[in-house]
Amino acid sequence: MADQKLPTRAEDFSEWYNQLVLRAELADYAPVRGCMVVRPYGWTLWENIQQALDRRFKATGHVNAAFPLFIPRSFIDKEKSHVAGFSPELAVVTHGGGEELAEPLVVRPTSETIIGHMWAKWIQSYRDLPILMNQWNSVVRWELRTKLFLRTLEFFWQEGHTAHATSEEGEAETRQMLDIYTDFAVNDAAIPVIPGKKSDAERFAGAQHTYSIEAMMGDGKALQSGTSHNLGQNFAKAFEIRYLDQQGQLQHCWTTSWGLSTRFIGAIIMVHGDDQGLILPPKLAPFQVVIVPIFKTDAEQVQVMDAARQVQAELTAASVRVKLDTRDGMTPGFKFNDWEMRGVPVRIEIGPKDVAKGSVVAARRDRPGKEGKTFVQRGELVAKVQELLTDVQAALLKGATEFRDANTREPNDYAEFQKAVEFGFARAWWCGNADCEAKIKEDTRATMRCIPLEQPAPATPGPGGSGKCIHCGQPATVKAIFARAY
Amino acid sequence: MADQKLPTRAEDFSEWYNQLVLRAELADYAPVRGCMVVRPYGWTLWENIQQALDRRFKATGHVNAAFPLFIPRSFIDKEKSHVAGFSPELAVVTHGGGEELAEPLVVRPTSETIIGHMWAKWIQSYRDLPILMNQWNSVVRWELRTKLFLRTLEFFWQEGHTAHATSEEGEAETRQMLDIYTDFAVNDAAIPVIPGKKSDAERFAGAQHTYSIEAMMGDGKALQSGTSHNLGQNFAKAFEIRYLDQQGQLQHCWTTSWGLSTRFIGAIIMVHGDDQGLILPPKLAPFQVVIVPIFKTDAEQVQVMDAARQVQAELTAASVRVKLDTRDGMTPGFKFNDWEMRGVPVRIEIGPKDVAKGSVVAARRDRPGKEGKTFVQRGELVAKVQELLTDVQAALLKGATEFRDANTREPNDYAEFQKAVEFGFARAWWCGNADCEAKIKEDTRATMRCIPLEQPAPATPGPGGSGKCIHCGQPATVKAIFARAY
Repeated sequence: MADQKLPTRAEDFSEWYNQLVLRAELADYAPVRGCMVVRPYGWTLWENIQQALDRRFKATGHVNAAFPLFIPRSFIDKEKSHVAGFSPELAVVTHGGGEELAEPLVVRPTSETIIGHMWAKWIQSYRDLPILMNQWNSVVRWELRTKLFLRTLEFFWQEGHTAHATSEEGEAETRQMLDIYTDFAVNDAAIPVIPGKKSDAERFAGAQHTYSIEAMMGDGKALQSGTSHNLGQNFAKAFEIRYLDQQGQLQHCWTTSWGLSTRFIGAIIMVHGDDQGLILPPKLAPFQVVIVPIFKTDAEQVQVMDAARQVQAELTAASVRVKLDTRDGMTPGFKFNDWEMRGVPVRIEIGPKDVAKGSVVAARRDRPGKEGKTFVQRGELVAKVQELLTDVQAALLKGATEFRDANTREPNDYAEFQKAVEFGFARAWWCGNADCEAKIKEDTRATMRCIPLEQPAPATPGPGGSGKCIHCGQPATVKAIFARAY
Repeated sequence: MADQKLPTRAEDFSEWYNQLVLRAELADYAPVRGCMVVRPYGWTLWENIQQALDRRFKATGHVNAAFPLFIPRSFIDKEKSHVAGFSPELAVVTHGGGEELAEPLVVRPTSETIIGHMWAKWIQSYRDLPILMNQWNSVVRWELRTKLFLRTLEFFWQEGHTAHATSEEGEAETRQMLDIYTDFAVNDAAIPVIPGKKSDAERFAGAQHTYSIEAMMGDGKALQSGTSHNLGQNFAKAFEIRYLDQQGQLQHCWTTSWGLSTRFIGAIIMVHGDDQGLILPPKLAPFQVVIVPIFKTDAEQVQVMDAARQVQAELTAASVRVKLDTRDGMTPGFKFNDWEMRGVPVRIEIGPKDVAKGSVVAARRDRPGKEGKTFVQRGELVAKVQELLTDVQAALLKGATEFRDANTREPNDYAEFQKAVEFGFARAWWCGNADCEAKIKEDTRATMRCIPLEQPAPATPGPGGSGKCIHCGQPATVKAIFARAY
């Protein structure tokens, strides 16, 4: 398939994405409408994401657990915003073991309710707090319009859930996890996300407030790439999650939840990909280096393959994730295209002349053509490859940051605003009124993505800057990001 | 809870197990009948099992992927033995997004069918083979009698699935994975399993034949602890999984599947546990070492905690998984019992006298009382602890092997056989007839666990030994293991 060209991003960004996901063998459509098969190449990318996050979760004291797939239908009804948000999206099991069930079971859309139920049993005293848990699993939401990775009926994610003795600790946890997502996105995925607070209209069903990280895709649209919710005492009250404090008084806990899903793979594709295919950030790439041997005669093959295997062994020993492409019946050119489609950050070419010179050719995926190629002496192989991987990682972040900044505008009036959100982000004063937010969406299809944590400095000492709402002209103290979004 | 005693194993093995799982905080009952919550301590044990297996799977060329939770009901019907085996156990989703579905969806009981469907699409040519995949997930089987870890409606496992060009490669893969399970069980879990072949009555629904590893629990019963299935061309024919061979002929693939589940945690509990609680093999234990500081005065506390933190840091730096128990309001004695319940292999006690002498006390979990205690000089700490962990690991395997061998009998007649299976394994000649197998089960409640790979040497050169079936007296060429089982 690698010999067929993708549609360009300019021609049809959506179709470029759809075909790329299939051709790079990241995922495929399942026989059940809206469900996804994550193929080994996509799943290995997800495993690398999992490791990068799990390491951070454990370093901040979180432990993993596993709560069940099935939740009694009645649990969903206990928290009133939660039921309103999730009821339309539920998959319901009505039969088990050949019989109709007395109470239907819901396939979890998220696990606040079942975890709340268990915590009510486990938590007794302030000594049991905080509870800092996470689970890696899949959840089901009955979406009507689906797209691989971005929105599927079943998706894979982690859901963190914590319980605390005080409101302040709950808020600190919510913010800590937002910081962890930001750090992961920027430093591992090379995606310059904007951390901020969602509006009331966009917050999680059952949360007091929600934070998110927002990323700009290659078509200028926003993708919410991770969320962290301060649940206040909403679930603690609905599920009676209580503890005895140091004075012997029974208190409700303060809880949080936070999640990042396989949707993030969609962000990696749409932030870094080009018309030739994927470009994967080296820190997360399943293969950081691919070696393509080039030969014509049998004698050349022996020499070249011998060198290729040595290069593979040296890089593997240095903990570089490396693939030696030994497929026969394919030209080197076909292999180049195939690995470009799959976004391997560095390609090493070895031919008979390279063997003779004791060198290899290294080509960067992010710089097409001659400009991205260098000759590397075999004695410097490991050091040079590691340097290249570091450079590619940094270049991807730089490129994505420049693209985002070039397409983020600060409109002075509503006309400029409407123009700005046709491609990219508008950063504008907002009065905080839900009516303005709704009207903006109606006029422009742009939604309030987040109120960035980073705000204009105030002219005078105080909580923030001030201006006039881009829509209604009333006084505003925050600038918000508006954009069309996935 | 650690101050209450468990029932002894001799009094009530089943209740000992149930209470131990709850009190060690491995798992808890979910609100949905038969479902399980795996708590962080239990899940960390499972993560260690996952790593130990995943490493072996990847070293033998397998890659992970993720196939969907939902399978169209019609898929299950395509392989006739498969549908007969799984139909009574299915959970069925009939409603999604508020509407009744046109075709009900099954929550996967296992994934041969959906994987077969996808492979039929992906596999074209002999160049695409072999396909070596695995997934870590949960599956649902509507069991009526459930027990935490051993048999639950939803359970966690890995399911490996492979496709090959020839029958021989399929069989080699099936045996390779059985070997990997055996190696893991013996060398990481310290469980001396018996690898062998299942009878036709006990094979997987849809398999040509099934291999398993069988372990002896502390009550003499058998637990099937992992299975590897040669599926022949059954699923390949049902799902049209075909490839073009080198001659351009269309051929059906040969497929395998193999799985090991959270049931294995039940094996670890019942093989190694004693009347005080769990004993975890060091290679898999969430905490290999727990440090319990002992002090009375504030001045002692400062000294002791300082030493305890140094010990923690030294062991952590040496990659030992170590927990420092800093809980206040609990006596050291309470903590000792608590960590014994949780089966931590080595306990380090540090009191003021130890600090003064520059030593610590190390106590082995597998040897109660003074016999298991040693003074360790601080200068030798890391080396001694590593030695102790190695010793505990070896002692657990030795103990379990001796117990199994002492309770495995080779009965000479059916009366001896009936006596033998009251506690432990009987290893007896079997004619291979399903009628004998069924009659034995009816008479004794013992089932044919497996025909071990290791068979008596033949008296004359040939395929195996010979004797008379323990039940019918007809000629038999294999000895089989019979036992009551979970």
